[in-house]
Amino acid sequence: MEKKVAIFRKEHFNAAHRLFVPEWSDEKNREVFGKCSNPHYHGHNYELIVKVTGVPDPTTGYVVNLSVLSDLIGKEVLAKFDHKNLNLDTKEFAHLNPTAENIVVVIYEMLRSKIDPKLDLSVRLYETERNFVEYPVSLTVDG
Amino acid sequence: MEKKVAIFRKEHFNAAHRLFVPEWSDEKNREVFGKCSNPHYHGHNYELIVKVTGVPDPTTGYVVNLSVLSDLIGKEVLAKFDHKNLNLDTKEFAHLNPTAENIVVVIYEMLRSKIDPKLDLSVRLYETERNFVEYPVSLTVDG
Amino acid sequence: MEKKVAIFRKEHFNAAHRLFVPEWSDEKNREVFGKCSNPHYHGHNYELIVKVTGVPDPTTGYVVNLSVLSDLIGKEVLAKFDHKNLNLDTKEFAHLNPTAENIVVVIYEMLRSKIDPKLDLSVRLYETERNFVEYPVSLTVDG
Amino acid sequence: MEKKVAIFRKEHFNAAHRLFVPEWSDEKNREVFGKCSNPHYHGHNYELIVKVTGVPDPTTGYVVNLSVLSDLIGKEVLAKFDHKNLNLDTKEFAHLNPTAENIVVVIYEMLRSKIDPKLDLSVRLYETERNFVEYPVSLTVDG
Amino acid sequence: MEKKVAIFRKEHFNAAHRLFVPEWSDEKNREVFGKCSNPHYHGHNYELIVKVTGVPDPTTGYVVNLSVLSDLIGKEVLAKFDHKNLNLDTKEFAHLNPTAENIVVVIYEMLRSKIDPKLDLSVRLYETERNFVEYPVSLTVDG
Amino acid sequence: MEKKVAIFRKEHFNAAHRLFVPEWSDEKNREVFGKCSNPHYHGHNYELIVKVTGVPDPTTGYVVNLSVLSDLIGKEVLAKFDHKNLNLDTKEFAHLNPTAENIVVVIYEMLRSKIDPKLDLSVRLYETERNFVEYPVSLTVDG
Repeated sequence: MEKKVAIFRKEHFNAAHRLFVPEWSDEKNREVFGKCSNPHYHGHNYELIVKVTGVPDPTTGYVVNLSVLSDLIGKEVLAKFDHKNLNLDTKEFAHLNPTAENIVVVIYEMLRSKIDPKLDLSVRLYETERNFVEYPVSLTVDG
Repeated sequence: MEKKVAIFRKEHFNAAHRLFVPEWSDEKNREVFGKCSNPHYHGHNYELIVKVTGVPDPTTGYVVNLSVLSDLIGKEVLAKFDHKNLNLDTKEFAHLNPTAENIVVVIYEMLRSKIDPKLDLSVRLYETERNFVEYPVSLTVDG
Repeated sequence: MEKKVAIFRKEHFNAAHRLFVPEWSDEKNREVFGKCSNPHYHGHNYELIVKVTGVPDPTTGYVVNLSVLSDLIGKEVLAKFDHKNLNLDTKEFAHLNPTAENIVVVIYEMLRSKIDPKLDLSVRLYETERNFVEYPVSLTVDG
Repeated sequence: MEKKVAIFRKEHFNAAHRLFVPEWSDEKNREVFGKCSNPHYHGHNYELIVKVTGVPDPTTGYVVNLSVLSDLIGKEVLAKFDHKNLNLDTKEFAHLNPTAENIVVVIYEMLRSKIDPKLDLSVRLYETERNFVEYPVSLTVDG
Repeated sequence: MEKKVAIFRKEHFNAAHRLFVPEWSDEKNREVFGKCSNPHYHGHNYELIVKVTGVPDPTTGYVVNLSVLSDLIGKEVLAKFDHKNLNLDTKEFAHLNPTAENIVVVIYEMLRSKIDPKLDLSVRLYETERNFVEYPVSLTVDG
Repeated sequence: MEKKVAIFRKEHFNAAHRLFVPEWSDEKNREVFGKCSNPHYHGHNYELIVKVTGVPDPTTGYVVNLSVLSDLIGKEVLAKFDHKNLNLDTKEFAHLNPTAENIVVVIYEMLRSKIDPKLDLSVRLYETERNFVEYPVSLTVDG
């Protein structure tokens, strides 16, 4: 049986954002999103972990070359998000609230089409050391 | 298809504990639990990661509001365990050995009933940087 | 001889900022500050370490109570900077470029007048895990 | 129903290695493995996380005693790899390219036969803080 | 001129403690020390960094052999404090409040007499990731 | 009075090395350097922190531009040491034992001549998370 191995590459980017629903009043936005809805934006050092799963090549011993994966993340994600205002400077969040949940799904979709379909992909995003998200999710036994 | 995202919140608490089986002799407790059975207790900075999985709300982009989740953990877990002696100050470990395995199951159960049943829940507990546990477990391909 | 001990308290805040000199052209700002001069702002998870040095009280064994120090930092610094745009939302950086160097000096001055003059004070600020600053500086033997 | 808990133990070792395929020219090795094919070797602080999953013993509350697991990892893995040249000093990598993927599979197999078959086993290996691998892989929902 | 280099060794221990002044009422202890005065103790994973400064030996290139220093810390500090109740199990804190400030001074004195007087010594102690102390203190320019 | 601020930049490199004194027998090298004298080398992920101290420029608010400092470290240090065997691939350690103490002094000297003499310089080098060194040393009150 072929042995699948997961490889992980960690990258980071710094960005500003603001959480709000444009159809809502300022008051309701403040109530739901608290300090995160500050109209002048705040920001984060986002840490990004990209997980790619597949069978290592029998000659090289690589699932994918991590420096190739790092370059891909740089080109597809960091070039668009690093040192940007997610709400104002990106088309992805022009009409989508840049919560961690929405950002991680967007990053997954940016990368999915660029990575060999035989390989599984999963993305974890740290907004702070204490708040983070993952997509798609691992199956868990819950009971 | 609805897209599930996992969100994580990290909290911590400091507590004293002692590992021992009351039916056993001191000698046998020392043999099985080593320094951890010291009768006068020792302690840890416990780091707790709570993972909640579900479909983000299409309006807010939140699976759950992390500040609400943080408050819930504070009320249900930290208020009972932080700066406490787990063996002497908590009803949960009055008759249950406070190993990391038992603590993580207890914390899961404290939180499970307070979180929407549509959401999956999983808890990781670090007793030290090098020793940690998780419940319920992820399914793994083994072999 | 009285024994001085240094105590440290770590806190964090999230903020947006932009580096630029208003008298300069956009081109010159871009040349000097690179991506950090993006007009729509970017952001960071700032980690702050406050160091206070003095002789522990012989009765309590405290230099200062760390929970009192934590509250002071919360009131004097975090309440003003957390989840804010440093350029737009603070009077301190309305006319001062919010480089890490300038931020750390400002934070020092915010705290200095609130802390007993018998105690020494020093502040370290992490803009990212790889870029950080300290003020005032430790004396170093150089050469 | 019996409740499975995962326990984790983190260990580390320092080793030298070189990535190359002996059938290939130096040029091709340099092209595929870059700096990692330097003929005189380079090295890493490898961090190793071993995950063991099973039902806690109802008396002790342990899945396995973590100090027993730590000793086992020390004897089976660290004694062979720590402060060694993986290519020259180990039989496992005499004819196998010591990529992180291959190392993690080898470590898994070293440990699998020594651990009770009722317990699941999984290994994560950090080559650097930014590059890491896991085997066997968690099942992920992908899509 | 001879070149002094500082070397650092990080160790850790787990212990229980309670902060209180025996001459004070429970109420006053609770007021000053808060949760830290819980009569049944709480605990921490203490991280300890020992800094030794001197001129490297011209033959070996060592200030001191770090594995010798690690053994010394193990014998003089960890053997006495690890997995202990500082108030009940140690003579050092039988009549001294085990604040981080007092612990760091005690550890310094335990080590000072065992280390070559030509070498400078300094100790940092982390009670949590956010609360830590250092003794003796670095000279700082203040103002 | 002019206000000096210290700025820090963290970088890393991976290298192999071996500790030994060529005039000594294998037995004596093994006795003094232990596993670190393994003839086939072992390796580390070295973390390097460069500290530069000076008065921030009143216009830019920079002591030095951290991206310029990062480029300088890359050119002067990483290009020579990253993914290298320190004993075999570098002229600096052809006849000097590559202990952490000797490496940190060498790195300091590589950088000192390239940095404005008005600025103070200090270097910290982590060989592992638990073993690290600093040069030149901070003055400490020791008594």
